[in-house]
Order: sequence, then structure tokens, then C-alpha cells
Amino acid sequence: MQERLFPYHQLYTFTYTVFIKMGCNATDAATATKTLLSADARGIDSHGVARLSGYLRLWEAKRINTTPNIKIVHETPSTAVVDGDAGLGLVVAPFAMEVAIDKAKQVGTGWVSVKNSNHFGIAGCHAMMALEHDMIGIAMTNASALVAPTFSIEKMLGTNPIAVAIPAGKQPPFVADFATTTAANGKLEILQRKNADTPLGWVQDKDGNPTTDANALKKQGALLPLGSDREHGSHKGYALGSIVDIFSAVLSGASYGPWAPPFPAYIAMPANMPGEGLGHFFGAMRIDAFRPAEDFKQHMDNWIGRFRQAKPAPGHEKVLIPGDPEREIEAIRMKEGIPIAQSVVDDLMAVGEMMGVVL
Amino acid sequence: MQERLFPYHQLYTFTYTVFIKMGCNATDAATATKTLLSADARGIDSHGVARLSGYLRLWEAKRINTTPNIKIVHETPSTAVVDGDAGLGLVVAPFAMEVAIDKAKQVGTGWVSVKNSNHFGIAGCHAMMALEHDMIGIAMTNASALVAPTFSIEKMLGTNPIAVAIPAGKQPPFVADFATTTAANGKLEILQRKNADTPLGWVQDKDGNPTTDANALKKQGALLPLGSDREHGSHKGYALGSIVDIFSAVLSGASYGPWAPPFPAYIAMPANMPGEGLGHFFGAMRIDAFRPAEDFKQHMDNWIGRFRQAKPAPGHEKVLIPGDPEREIEAIRMKEGIPIAQSVVDDLMAVGEMMGVVL
Repeated sequence: MQERLFPYHQLYTFTYTVFIKMGCNATDAATATKTLLSADARGIDSHGVARLSGYLRLWEAKRINTTPNIKIVHETPSTAVVDGDAGLGLVVAPFAMEVAIDKAKQVGTGWVSVKNSNHFGIAGCHAMMALEHDMIGIAMTNASALVAPTFSIEKMLGTNPIAVAIPAGKQPPFVADFATTTAANGKLEILQRKNADTPLGWVQDKDGNPTTDANALKKQGALLPLGSDREHGSHKGYALGSIVDIFSAVLSGASYGPWAPPFPAYIAMPANMPGEGLGHFFGAMRIDAFRPAEDFKQHMDNWIGRFRQAKPAPGHEKVLIPGDPEREIEAIRMKEGIPIAQSVVDDLMAVGEMMGVVL
Repeated sequence: MQERLFPYHQLYTFTYTVFIKMGCNATDAATATKTLLSADARGIDSHGVARLSGYLRLWEAKRINTTPNIKIVHETPSTAVVDGDAGLGLVVAPFAMEVAIDKAKQVGTGWVSVKNSNHFGIAGCHAMMALEHDMIGIAMTNASALVAPTFSIEKMLGTNPIAVAIPAGKQPPFVADFATTTAANGKLEILQRKNADTPLGWVQDKDGNPTTDANALKKQGALLPLGSDREHGSHKGYALGSIVDIFSAVLSGASYGPWAPPFPAYIAMPANMPGEGLGHFFGAMRIDAFRPAEDFKQHMDNWIGRFRQAKPAPGHEKVLIPGDPEREIEAIRMKEGIPIAQSVVDDLMAVGEMMGVVL
């Protein structure tokens, strides 16, 4: 697959300027750019600049409001519901995570459910906001329905990711960030571009049969919940995806399940939506609301160190800690540049032409 | 497999009396019995009276204290750390969940991490305590290391279950309760008794190879995280199990990872334990800390109703909601009696003989 290498600052300037031309103020454009590019930096290529044209089309379709009045509509000392006013999820999510962090400063923890938002980039980026405050951060979101529950052939849930970021001391933080499906949709897209098959257990066909067709979703097939099939625990992945949907959307008043708004602007909004926009859920827990932060961080160092020393299986060099691969990629990409697939470069060129911005 | 049917009250009286003879006061004996038997009632046979002799042996080995001074050792408005004083997890966990519920009444949510505890029965039972308060309940626990992380052959984590209970209106509540492994250890035990093989993807052998040997754990093999292998997302199950371990034990000061105390009393405690006893983590979120409870419950009814109507795959009658199978079993067992495997009956007879209690 052909790729081009871009320094981070070049993608930053381009993306920032596109958001400004879409009507964002300088602060929002900077927040949105930083959030979006954290995906490219960390190697989650499906959620970075590759999505920029998608956001643009949603803005053209008036589904994204670039001058939103994002506000708290209900709160208690440890909770809030935030109305994103159809803003970019890339801006709404950091706002809501800040609210969670502020509440944690006051009463130990903060929990914020968000309605009327849009795609928020990678979940891990938001969860990691808690780290510098010596807090554990949690982020999740619902998404367009691509996943069939166990025993079903109907797409009812999104890939509904969960991220949890936990501070350590001398060790780098523990950062888990994963779709509640066996494979994220971005991995399917990569195989589609290569005309390659998927492993069995990632997708099913329109009749619910196992298939290796990377294009199964375009033929009424569905992604499978983490676990793949009932015998391997897909009911657990289905439950996890459901919990993300309920915390993000039923708790906030967003649209849930099969009614979650689709990301591609060319797909019509579902009829009879039961809520407003997409939903997210954020949590922040102050470490010293449980035990002194230094004690905790020493034990996290011990935890991480011990797991790194777990005996590797033959053929494997070492056991990884959640967040290791992304951190290693980020170090390389910030130094050597970010590889962007040629098809995405073409797409960005078209965005640039349309908005009068040079890549 | 030979079984005997017992009415609930018969098992209750027997178990209650055994706990009393172990030195529990009447309140604790009742709480422990109710918690333990909720597993038998709900069909999770591995976590019910089948465990009673195990608790007894831990008590004999002085690892369980039946007259504990369970107390809050640190707190903020929305958090607490509870020291279980080596009490029965069956008693410590309901105490801690009550603390979480009380805090949620005050500030919207409550989050309690517990150290110095023991096996707490089924996680779902504790999470469900929140339901009658119109709260979402969350419960998790670490456990003896039986699970190898992705790319490892060393057992580093327990089956570390997560339970989430969410109230609905006319519909029954949503209750997810699952081990973060592909298969719970109790399912292996059932296959061992039948001399049957496991499906591929449940366990690995001592060299990390796939195996169908239900006795693999006794031969230095390990249970696999949810997802089974890297290609099917086992790194996600490993991350989930790790999060449960950290929230339950590193946050509270319990023993974590490979140092979690083993359930069988004949296995020596690990050397250099970094904390006290087993750890749990509980959460309670008041629904009306986010939106009016009646609104939420109406939308949960809509959510559940819609998912029940999801088109089933050929060969399947219907799509299930988490909690459906357990609730259906409970209704039958409370009416017709609880089937107990003959080997467990023999075990209970031995317990009864030792403690002077008639089954």
C-alpha cells in the first residue's frame, strides 16, 4: 500500500486551518486538531485525519455545528449531563472530560454523560486527560450500529469503545483503549484496501454464518462482539457494548442502539430517533480519594514491572502492558513523521481544494 | 451426572447454621447465606453451596475471620476504601456496596475499593443491590491467578468478573455478570466431571499451545482472556481483567496479580504479598443524578424491547438481554428446587458431619 510521510506539524496546520474554515473558533479548532491527530500519532490510523473529510461532509449536511453552545444541563456534586449542541465530538468530549476532572477535584470522582454530540476521535485521548491530575480516566462512546448481538443478524450496536487510563510512577501509564468487538472497523477497512480476507470470527454474513469476507458489512453482514461466538463468550462482548451504549446514550438522552446517528453523511438519519445525537460517557477518579497517590503509583510500577516479566510464550519476546504499542509508535512518528495512505492523501487534497487550504 | 433437588429453604437453613457454627453472628450468617445461595438460585452452580467447604477450610486455616471489624479506612464524599479485616467476602461485599449506595444518595455516585477480603460469591448479586434504589450497580473482584496474559504462559490474573445492573421500568432489569475470560473456571470444572473436552480457545497448555484438555490448568496450563488469542482480541480481555485487578486491589491496598490469595486453603499463600487479602470494587450511580429516573426507565424499556425484537439468526429463537437466562432459571428453581450435583451433596454431608449440622 502506497503511503506518504508527513511531519506532525504539517498535518496539524492543515487540519487546524480546515476546522477554522468550517467556522470553529481558534480554541475549538486547536482542541479538535489535537484530539484528531492523537489517533494518527498513536497509530490508530482509522480515527485520525482519515476521518477529516467525513467530519466535513457532516458539517455540510448541517449535522455538525461548529459554533455550539456546549453546556451542563443537569448536575450533582459528582455527576453531570452535558448537551453538546451537535458540536464536533472532538471538542465536546474534552469539555465533558474537564467537567469530570473538576468534579473529581471537589468530591473524589466525576462522571459525565453526554448527549447531542458527534464522533469524538479515539477514546484513549480523552481518558488520558486525567493522568496529569493523578486521576484514573475513563472514556466511552456509542456509535453507528455495525454489530449484531449474539444470536442475531441485525446490526444493533456500534463498536462502542472503552478507554481506561491509569497513572503510574516511573513506569509509563497503563492505557487500555479498545472496541468492544473482536476487531475494530478500522481493521476491516485496512483488509478491504488490500483485498484480503479477515480471520474467521470477526464478521458474519447476512444469514449469521461465519465468513472471512472483509466486505461482509456492505452485504448486510455484521461485525461480531468481542468473543466472536457464544461458545467463546460473544455474549460478554455484547453485554460490554450494551453497557457503553446505555451509559453513553440512555443515561444522557442521546440516541441509542440501532438509532445512533450514522457517521457517513450520505446515510439518512434513522426514523423515530429516541434521543439527541451521539452519546459519550466519561469518568475521573482521584487516586488520593482512595489512597495516597505516591503509594498507588509505586504499586502500579510494581504491577507493571511484574507483568512485563511474566514468562513469554515460545515465539514471543515479551508480554505487553496496555498502551505500550501506541506509545512506541507515537515516539517514532513524532520523530520520523506520520505515514498516511495515498488514498487518504488524495482525500485530504480534495478537502484542501474545497476549503482553499494547502496540505 | 447424578443430582439431588433441594428446596431453597433447606439449603438456606443448612448453610446459615454452618456459618453460625463458624462463629458468624446472626446478621452476618444471614447475609453470607443469602449472597452464597443467590448463585445457586441463578444457576451459577460453581459459586454457590459448592463453595461452602472451601470457605470452611479457609476458616480452619485462619484465613477467614468470622468476627471481623469491617470498616472504612479512608473516604471522600464519593469514595471509600473498606478494610474487610479478613472477613467472608460474602459479608464484606454487601457492607461495601451499602457504603457506595449511601454515598450515591448524598453526591450522586459512590465508589468503594475493598482490601483484606475473601471470595465474595457472584458479582451480580452485589451489583443488583443498587436496583431498588433506582441506581446502576457495579461490582468486580480480583481472584487467584489462573489466567495468562496475551503472549504469556504464566498465570497472572484471576477470572476477575465484572457485573453491571441497570434498572428498567416494566421490563426486568439489565444484569450483566461475566468473567473477563473466554470461559469461567466453573465451566471447566463441569467438563472435568464429565471427562469432556473444552472447545479450542478456552485454555492453553504449559507451552502456550491451544488445547482442548479440560484439565490443562492442573498441568501448568492457563485459562485464556476473553478473545482467546491475539487475532480475536485476547489483548482486550487481558486489559479488562487487568483493570478489574487494579481497581479492586491496587486502588485499595489488597494483593494483586499473581499475588492474589488462592481460594484453595491447601495452596500456600504467595511470598512477598504486596497488599492485604483479596480486593473488590463497587460502584453505585443514582439515575436521577443524570436524568429523571422515570424518563430513564422508559427509555430502558424501549432499549430492552427493541433488542428483544432484533432479528434472530436462523436456528435461534430470540435475542437475549443480559440477565434473562439467570432470571428464568431463578424462577424455576425457587419453585421446583435447586439441583445439586451428587459430588457437592457428598461434600456438604461431610461439612455437616464436621460441624454437627444436618442437611
